[in-house]
Amino acid sequence: MTLDLVIRNKCFGGWQQQWDHYSDVLNCTMRFAVFLPPQVEEGDPVPVLYWLSGLTCTDENFMQKSGAQRIAAELGMAIVAPDTSPRGADVPDDPNQDYDLGLGAGFYVNATEPPWNQHYQMYDYIADELPSLIESQFPVTQQRAIAGHSMGGHGALVIALRNPQRYSSVSAFSPISHPSDCPWGQKAFAHYLGPDDGINWQQYDACELLALSTPHLPVLIDQGTADQFLSEQLKPGALLKAAEQAGYPISLRMQPDYDHSYYFIASFIEEHLRFHARWFDH
Amino acid sequence: MTLDLVIRNKCFGGWQQQWDHYSDVLNCTMRFAVFLPPQVEEGDPVPVLYWLSGLTCTDENFMQKSGAQRIAAELGMAIVAPDTSPRGADVPDDPNQDYDLGLGAGFYVNATEPPWNQHYQMYDYIADELPSLIESQFPVTQQRAIAGHSMGGHGALVIALRNPQRYSSVSAFSPISHPSDCPWGQKAFAHYLGPDDGINWQQYDACELLALSTPHLPVLIDQGTADQFLSEQLKPGALLKAAEQAGYPISLRMQPDYDHSYYFIASFIEEHLRFHARWFDH
Repeated sequence: MTLDLVIRNKCFGGWQQQWDHYSDVLNCTMRFAVFLPPQVEEGDPVPVLYWLSGLTCTDENFMQKSGAQRIAAELGMAIVAPDTSPRGADVPDDPNQDYDLGLGAGFYVNATEPPWNQHYQMYDYIADELPSLIESQFPVTQQRAIAGHSMGGHGALVIALRNPQRYSSVSAFSPISHPSDCPWGQKAFAHYLGPDDGINWQQYDACELLALSTPHLPVLIDQGTADQFLSEQLKPGALLKAAEQAGYPISLRMQPDYDHSYYFIASFIEEHLRFHARWFDH
Repeated sequence: MTLDLVIRNKCFGGWQQQWDHYSDVLNCTMRFAVFLPPQVEEGDPVPVLYWLSGLTCTDENFMQKSGAQRIAAELGMAIVAPDTSPRGADVPDDPNQDYDLGLGAGFYVNATEPPWNQHYQMYDYIADELPSLIESQFPVTQQRAIAGHSMGGHGALVIALRNPQRYSSVSAFSPISHPSDCPWGQKAFAHYLGPDDGINWQQYDACELLALSTPHLPVLIDQGTADQFLSEQLKPGALLKAAEQAGYPISLRMQPDYDHSYYFIASFIEEHLRFHARWFDH
């Protein structure tokens, strides 16, 4: 396992870093960002929040725009932000170069259809390979939380609901709640997974997974009411309904006037980090 | 005076906005960003912090990366972030397209040399035209503070030192402290102002202005020790020496391991906003 340091910046008394490594799962070199809080330099291993970003993002967007490091430094929490798809010259992209398929749009699934299946195995990368790497190479505990925005909110919910024993809590901003039933999700799933056969799409759809997932995790979701993607793509109502039918308690807060941008995330990220920190302590 | 709203985003209970307007001083259409804290919606006019960004930046960098809105929302302070140069198809750029001259590199001076003198009048824009516009069009008081980073730290110091009656305090991150004596400043000043005649460069050099400026303003400066531009371009030692010789008290803090990036700014912006808020209250 070779890890190459790309850059590091002192930040809120800790270190913001970017690392490159070869991913066996994705079959390409991947970059991730990590914030290590100051407690690490005092020799204390810290829990980890995995942050999954949305369409078009890289490992950098959240670290540059959320302001999360301030709270992570206070709470003694590492944050790991992976890229949103495999990358590199031999990784296929959408022939139409649309922003919602291919590079920057991995949708956190294991693709089964060519040409995507050679690299687009983001589910396994996020759920298994990356945490194994982080836990073997960085001074962290095995306490994990997972969160994300939009496509990354979908990814966080799906990965947590399928692996509840691996995470102590999950949160999301403006998640794509029901990808089997919205244009972004249907397009991506059709390309990556093939036609909906009643199983292959459902295993990556939070609305379908809620009824199957035990034990229940603490779930916090924030959704802006002025989000331009609210009714067509994000569908928080579907998630609420599915949770109610499944008897799965979730906290979904509609935030008046907030939109889909990082200004929304920055405004509430402190509450998400404190939420995750409470469950680390359990 | 026509102001066109480009976008607005709810942020920490207030509004993050971008506006376009025609600048008579710069002879082109300019964009600025403003954060209006929630106190504005309660009908309370608020003081304004002007933020001047560094080389290559636009009005957006600080607003997206500093996290300042959180503190401004608490303190009841507006923040205005202008662009770093005139913009537009008929505004000349460096023929070599270097990042440190022309677009994105206005250096907050009034250019006297062609072709720059038709548009590059950033000093007058920041010191006069923009505050007049803000104070006539937004619910703000006439309490003003000014701050900036790198080239913008230079701009903030110069504009405050030349107009101490107009600002209650000034702060800077990693300012270009002595532009007459560093490569960035010498290149820009030679193009915009012509050869150094003993007066034309000095009027835009904080080290020269300290001895001439009364009344003294509260000055806070943070400088990272791992800043790659520290010794060649920024020269905080020259500023300290000039302040000492002038009997001008300044607070200059060397911050161990911090570099020139926005991760540094984000780490200390809260202290800068609280510093300015204290002097607004005087």
